[in-house]
Amino acid sequence: MVGPKGNAVIGQSGGPTAVINRSFIGAIIEARKHGEILEMFGARHGIQGMLNNEYVPLFVQPNFVLKQISTTPAAALGSVRHKPSKEECSRIFENFKKMNVRYFFYIGGNDSAETAYIINSFAAGEGYDLRVVHIPKTIDNDLLVTDHCPGYGSAAKYVACAFIGDNEDNRALKGVKINIVMGRNAGFLTAASILGKQYPKDGPHLVYMPEKPFDIDRFLKDVESTYKEHGRALIAVSEGINKQGNYSLNEDEKPDYISTWLNSFVNINLPEKYMPKGDSKAVELDSHGNVSLSGTSMLGDILTFIVKNNLDIKRVRADTLGYPQRSFPLAISEVDAEEAYKVGVDAVIASVQKNFDEGSIAIRRLDDYGDYGIETFITPLQSVQRKTKDFPENWFAESGGIDERKFREYVNPIVGELPMSGRFIKAIF
Amino acid sequence: MVGPKGNAVIGQSGGPTAVINRSFIGAIIEARKHGEILEMFGARHGIQGMLNNEYVPLFVQPNFVLKQISTTPAAALGSVRHKPSKEECSRIFENFKKMNVRYFFYIGGNDSAETAYIINSFAAGEGYDLRVVHIPKTIDNDLLVTDHCPGYGSAAKYVACAFIGDNEDNRALKGVKINIVMGRNAGFLTAASILGKQYPKDGPHLVYMPEKPFDIDRFLKDVESTYKEHGRALIAVSEGINKQGNYSLNEDEKPDYISTWLNSFVNINLPEKYMPKGDSKAVELDSHGNVSLSGTSMLGDILTFIVKNNLDIKRVRADTLGYPQRSFPLAISEVDAEEAYKVGVDAVIASVQKNFDEGSIAIRRLDDYGDYGIETFITPLQSVQRKTKDFPENWFAESGGIDERKFREYVNPIVGELPMSGRFIKAIF
Repeated sequence: MVGPKGNAVIGQSGGPTAVINRSFIGAIIEARKHGEILEMFGARHGIQGMLNNEYVPLFVQPNFVLKQISTTPAAALGSVRHKPSKEECSRIFENFKKMNVRYFFYIGGNDSAETAYIINSFAAGEGYDLRVVHIPKTIDNDLLVTDHCPGYGSAAKYVACAFIGDNEDNRALKGVKINIVMGRNAGFLTAASILGKQYPKDGPHLVYMPEKPFDIDRFLKDVESTYKEHGRALIAVSEGINKQGNYSLNEDEKPDYISTWLNSFVNINLPEKYMPKGDSKAVELDSHGNVSLSGTSMLGDILTFIVKNNLDIKRVRADTLGYPQRSFPLAISEVDAEEAYKVGVDAVIASVQKNFDEGSIAIRRLDDYGDYGIETFITPLQSVQRKTKDFPENWFAESGGIDERKFREYVNPIVGELPMSGRFIKAIF
Repeated sequence: MVGPKGNAVIGQSGGPTAVINRSFIGAIIEARKHGEILEMFGARHGIQGMLNNEYVPLFVQPNFVLKQISTTPAAALGSVRHKPSKEECSRIFENFKKMNVRYFFYIGGNDSAETAYIINSFAAGEGYDLRVVHIPKTIDNDLLVTDHCPGYGSAAKYVACAFIGDNEDNRALKGVKINIVMGRNAGFLTAASILGKQYPKDGPHLVYMPEKPFDIDRFLKDVESTYKEHGRALIAVSEGINKQGNYSLNEDEKPDYISTWLNSFVNINLPEKYMPKGDSKAVELDSHGNVSLSGTSMLGDILTFIVKNNLDIKRVRADTLGYPQRSFPLAISEVDAEEAYKVGVDAVIASVQKNFDEGSIAIRRLDDYGDYGIETFITPLQSVQRKTKDFPENWFAESGGIDERKFREYVNPIVGELPMSGRFIKAIF
C-alpha cells in the first residue's frame, strides 16, 4: 500500500455523455481492489451533493447493477454545473474530514477540471492529504493535452449516423437541409458529419465550423452553387459559428455568435399573460438585456428562413440535432465505451501510486504497426482546466474545407464501424 | 401463370422511413420468381419519374446490391409528393402502354394510396389491364384498415430510445425538457415516447397528443405540478397538437394547429436584404399571407419561452426530434424490418393471383397462443386512400393520459427490445 488509507468521493459534472457512466463504474470496480480505499461514496449531482452531504455508498452495489448502470447514458449520480466558492470549499472539507476522504475523483470536462483544481488547491492550502483526479469526458472533444476525450466517439457516431440517414432522406426528397450540431467552442463534433459521406456525391456538402469566421453572404453563395451542382444540399453547421472564427480570437475575447446575432432580429409578441413578467427571474436575459434564445433551435430556423428568402429553392429544412447527440443509447461506439471505462480504472490506479499528487487522466494514441491503440498518462490539473482546444488548424484543406483524409485517420478508430448505405450499380441520381 | 404477362413498375412516395427500402427490395426479389413479370422498372421519384420516363431496370441488380439497399434508410428510388392530374395520367399511360406495363406497385402512405387509386381508376376507364397494388409505409401509423404500418416500428423505436436517453439526461441535470415528436394527424409516434418509462418516476411525465384539444393554460398547470412532484418534467408533444383535438373535428374540418397559432406571434425582422422579396416564390406563405414557419422547431422553442416566462423554473429546453425519427440507421426494429420486407413480397404474390384486381396490402395481427404474429390481406384502395386513422379513443385512460397497458400490448412487439437503463439498488434520486 502506498496511498493514504481512507475513503473516496466520486462525482459527475457538466453535460452528460452516453458513456460517462462507464468511467464511473470503472472507477468503482477498480477502487474495490485497492485496500487503501475503504469505501467509495458517490456525490449526488457533484459539488451540489458534496455541499449538502448527499452521498451514495457504492461498494455495496451488486455487480449486475453496476453493469447495467455502466451501459446507461447520462450521469447516474446526477450532474451539476457549479464552480465552488472558497466558502463552499470550507463546507465541503468539513465533511471530507469527518468522512476521512482521501481520494476525490471528478468526471467531467474543462470546467469540471477547474473544480477539481480548486478543490485540490484548497486541500493543499489546508495541508490536508487529498489525492485529486479529474477523469475526462466531453462530447465536444475540446480538452487540452489528451488525444481525444471519452464521450466524443459516441457523440460523433450519433452525428455520423444522423448524416448517413439524412443524406439518404435528402437524396430521396431533394432540397436544402441544414443540421445544427453541438459544440460551442470546438468543431470536432460538427466535423464528424463528414462521416456521412460514403459515396462521391454524398453530403454533407458544406460544413461550417466555429474555428472559421462565418459570413452569411458567403454561406448563401455556397448553398446556391452546391444546389446548382447537386440539385440538393446537406449542410452541417456548428451551433458555435461566429463572426470572428475561434482561431482569430484573442485570449478571453468573446466570439460574436451568429445565433445571438440572428436571434436579435426575432421578436415574440405573445398575448400579454404569456410574456416575461418584469420581476421574473425565470427569463434569461443576455448581457444586452435581450431575451436569450440560446439553447433553442432558432439558428437553424433563421438560416432556413434566409435561404428561402434569398434563393429560389422551395424545400429548405433544418434540424437541431439536440440532446440525442449526447444521450442516444443506440449509437455508442465500442472503442469509446472501452476507453471511458479505462480512464475510470486508470484514475484509481494512478491515485494510489506512491508519487501521485493530483492530475487529470489523458489519452495518448499509439500507432501499433498501423493498428490503433491507446495508453493513458497523468497531466497536471492546471494543464487541462478552463481552457479548451480548437479543431487543429492544419486539418483544414487549402480550399477551406476539412481535410477529410487527415480527420478520418484521427476519428475513424474512435467512432468504429458505421452502417453502410447501398447504391444501384449504375447510379440512378 | 394467372396474371397477365408484362412488365412491372414500382415507385416510392411520400416521407421516407428507415425500412421503406425493405419493401422495395422484397418486391424485386419476389417479382423475379414470377414468370408473369418480365422485368421490373423502378420509377425515379415515383410519379415524377413516370412522367419523365425515368426508370431503372431492377432485375439486373446483383443480390449484394439489393441486400445493401434493403438496409439503407429512405427511398433508394427517390421519393415525391405529387398527385397526378388527368392529363398527367394520360402521359403516364402512353409510356405504360409502350412499355407493356401490367403491374404497378406504389409504396407509400394514404396520399400514395390515393395516387394508386387514381392510376387504377384511369386504367379502368381506359379498359387497360393493369394490376395496381399499394404497399403501405408510414412512420405516422395512421393508415386505415391495417393493424399497423411498416415504418412505424422503427420510428417508434427511435422515439423510445430518444426518451430513454433523455430521461437519464433530465434526471442528471434537472429541469423541464420538451421533445416535439412527428405525426401531424395521429399521435401513435408521440405515444411511443412512453416506452421511455422504465422505472416508476421516469418520464415522459406528460404526453400531448393531436387527438385531444391542447390548451396552453392547462399545459402550464400540468408542467407546474409535475415539476413540483418530480423536480423535473420530461414532456412529449406531438407536432400536430391543435385547439379542437382531432376526435372532435368534423370531416374536412381543418385543425387549428398550436404551432401555427404560436408562429403568428413571431416576427423576424432581418436586415432588408435577407427578408422575403415581394415577387419571390421561394417564400411559403400560409392562407393568411403570413410567412410559414411550418417544418421548423418554433413550436418547441415558443413553448419553452412560455414556460420560462410563466413558471419559476430556470432550466427549460426543447428538442424537435426531426428527421432522425424516420432515417436514423441504428434504431431499426427487426420486426418492423421483416414486416416491411413481407408486405413487398406479398404485394407481388397478390398481384399475380387469378382474381386480383387492385388493392392495398394490410396487416392483421395474430395472437398465436400469446405469441405475436401477423398475416397480410388485401383491402381495396378505396378503403385506405386519403383518410387517416386516429389513435384509438379507448386507448386513453380516464385520467386523460394514455392507457399504457393497452398501448404497450399493441406497440411492444412492433418495436422490439429496448436498451434497459440501470438504477442503484437504493434509489438515489
